[in-house]
Amino acid sequence: VESIPPSRAPQPIDREWCVAADAADPLAPLRSRFQIPDGLVYLDGNSLGALPVAALERVDRVVRHEWGDGLIASWMQAGWMDQTLRLGDKLAPLLGAGAGQVLICDTTTINLQRLLTAVLERSPRRVVVTQKENFHTDLYAASGVARMLGAELRVVPRAELAPALDDSVSVLMLTHVDYRTGEMHDLRKLTEAAHAVGAMALWDLCHSVGAVPLALDDDEVDLAVGCGYKYLNGGPGAPAFLYVAARHQARLDSPLRGWLGHREPFAFALEYAPADGIRRHQVSSPSILGMAALEAALDVFAEVEMAELREKSLGLTATFMDLVESRCAGSGFRLATPRDPQRRGSQVALAHEHAYGVVRALIERGVVGDFRTPDIARFGFAPLYIRFIDVWEAVERLAGVLADSAHLDGRHVVRAAVT
Amino acid sequence: VESIPPSRAPQPIDREWCVAADAADPLAPLRSRFQIPDGLVYLDGNSLGALPVAALERVDRVVRHEWGDGLIASWMQAGWMDQTLRLGDKLAPLLGAGAGQVLICDTTTINLQRLLTAVLERSPRRVVVTQKENFHTDLYAASGVARMLGAELRVVPRAELAPALDDSVSVLMLTHVDYRTGEMHDLRKLTEAAHAVGAMALWDLCHSVGAVPLALDDDEVDLAVGCGYKYLNGGPGAPAFLYVAARHQARLDSPLRGWLGHREPFAFALEYAPADGIRRHQVSSPSILGMAALEAALDVFAEVEMAELREKSLGLTATFMDLVESRCAGSGFRLATPRDPQRRGSQVALAHEHAYGVVRALIERGVVGDFRTPDIARFGFAPLYIRFIDVWEAVERLAGVLADSAHLDGRHVVRAAVT
Repeated sequence: VESIPPSRAPQPIDREWCVAADAADPLAPLRSRFQIPDGLVYLDGNSLGALPVAALERVDRVVRHEWGDGLIASWMQAGWMDQTLRLGDKLAPLLGAGAGQVLICDTTTINLQRLLTAVLERSPRRVVVTQKENFHTDLYAASGVARMLGAELRVVPRAELAPALDDSVSVLMLTHVDYRTGEMHDLRKLTEAAHAVGAMALWDLCHSVGAVPLALDDDEVDLAVGCGYKYLNGGPGAPAFLYVAARHQARLDSPLRGWLGHREPFAFALEYAPADGIRRHQVSSPSILGMAALEAALDVFAEVEMAELREKSLGLTATFMDLVESRCAGSGFRLATPRDPQRRGSQVALAHEHAYGVVRALIERGVVGDFRTPDIARFGFAPLYIRFIDVWEAVERLAGVLADSAHLDGRHVVRAAVT
Repeated sequence: VESIPPSRAPQPIDREWCVAADAADPLAPLRSRFQIPDGLVYLDGNSLGALPVAALERVDRVVRHEWGDGLIASWMQAGWMDQTLRLGDKLAPLLGAGAGQVLICDTTTINLQRLLTAVLERSPRRVVVTQKENFHTDLYAASGVARMLGAELRVVPRAELAPALDDSVSVLMLTHVDYRTGEMHDLRKLTEAAHAVGAMALWDLCHSVGAVPLALDDDEVDLAVGCGYKYLNGGPGAPAFLYVAARHQARLDSPLRGWLGHREPFAFALEYAPADGIRRHQVSSPSILGMAALEAALDVFAEVEMAELREKSLGLTATFMDLVESRCAGSGFRLATPRDPQRRGSQVALAHEHAYGVVRALIERGVVGDFRTPDIARFGFAPLYIRFIDVWEAVERLAGVLADSAHLDGRHVVRAAVT
């Protein structure tokens, strides 16, 4: 069932219902924990999450006091040295992961390279299976690693994933929620399918972490990566994360390694010896400024249950879809996001011939979504700070844009936005 | 000649001369651009540079306004998207590099992996030569890449580098200034030696950039990497850099790649096609908070000539060595840093049986240096903010520590420092 608080919505949904839904929303107070520009309807938190107010103070403290006053001593005294593990354990509950399996470090793509090389360097199997709809950095990283290690990257359409799995497959590498359509894979089932042929499952969680409940341990996921700057709200270019299930940690020893993954980094030994546990996948010093903002962002999540967030997220996306269908009917939109709540993340994608122009026109009217080639208008609903009234306003303005047929010509609108 | 401003120093150097040297130092006003805790003699800027005061405001502006108010639009409107190249060009003069050859991204070790795999994946030659005194993360990264690509890492003592070069060598990978001893290689000569056997020279500039004039283009260096947080003062875990000489850019295509190195990142193409120029080595979104601090740090360098900085740096290190020899004679120290100004960077290393205890005792007395295993007390002199009076104070307190024989027992001092 699609749960839309506070009660079953009228059809068509009206503005009053959205106001009432916000008034009844137990998560509504969390919006004040973010800096949201007045009047802006920000439906792009799936690209860059909003600023947690606490990050301002925390980053300033880290710069002014930990760096400025503490200087080199802060690596120990301010706990910088342990942050990759400590923040990993702080993120772990959002992943459904027990302690000691998550490291905060580097970027999603770099972490993907690190884990893929670790598996492929030693696996007798030479195939990585992925889908062609995957976000392209994953495809580029995997094809680069495959080229380097003489492996094969098998790129198939989403619908052909199951038949692509056979006993030559080393890794099934997928993104949980599709960055364009918002369609969500059945993570547990596909992980089982990988295991059934003796392969590992490596999940990119960029578009699910912080928006969708995850149960990596229970679902027996092997490996995962994801970013810190979308629904996690860690800031532009925030540190990313990687997950290695405890059962694999002792044997996965990536060739893409550095001194902070050494068993004794300060022994300055000539030979590399990997640390026990997840720390062996750390390479270099983390970005301490980035870590500060990310920690402030993670602290907001400590106050909510993912199930509650998910319920609100589904309510927001269902309301948006209902309103678009009732108020923008006949405007040439096609819903590219599944209606089934089991099969969508926290975004709604609308396919339209003039999607680019519509997105530009909406931005001019204070509704920020984004365009994804070739014809997708994409709207993300970060449940920590998006309200039902924002959904109403977004569709109100969308209907206005569509009613003004001049704006349906993308070229016209692009000129208008540039000048 | 070792140039010690403002005039030839008396022997032994006295406190008054140090005061006069600061008064005559044309770079002295730059110290006010940094936040230096009162009374602290910070000789560890070669590990973590001091905070540029302007970074406080700049980081706050980026967090509060660019991220908080501008949100996703800041990737274009605040120029985030071009920062890796723009800041690369800002750093380039410090490297003696023309525009379009430097990228600010990721970490030193990761950049080393990226460049080493680019060369080794396609080179028929299978050997990387390096020295065993190299900083160990470079050794671990190179041995990991070599293992993965079936290459050989030939690790030899510093004195045996020349005979280790033969026509099997693909890359000579060296650190310009030794992290322990401060000894500096003849970069031009070793680059020539690599070229003479048909190999490329890859330099790690972590301990030279910002302290030692570099001329990568004139010296025909092929590849280089380095960090942003030592003499550059970019902050803890600051973004690093990589340099690829223009003549190599078209053919070096690293398998460790990502979407921002694609020719058209927003075309979302299935197949990877590397961008022209240095941008092909960018993988992911940069840490925007880290970039903000680093840019404030680089702006300070725009006001000085590296030759002038180098002159002061040599004056500081020569003064320190003179004072240690005149005031700490007979205390069991051995100077591990070359006296020859052509052969040292901007640090002085003292070898001593109780180096660990001495460093701890000095820290208690407000002089921050660091210990490097097994017996090195290391002192870095960042010429942008270290004064001659700091050198005097450091040796004054060092002499005091050495005179108090109880502190020469490392174990005693460790206990004292912990409690």
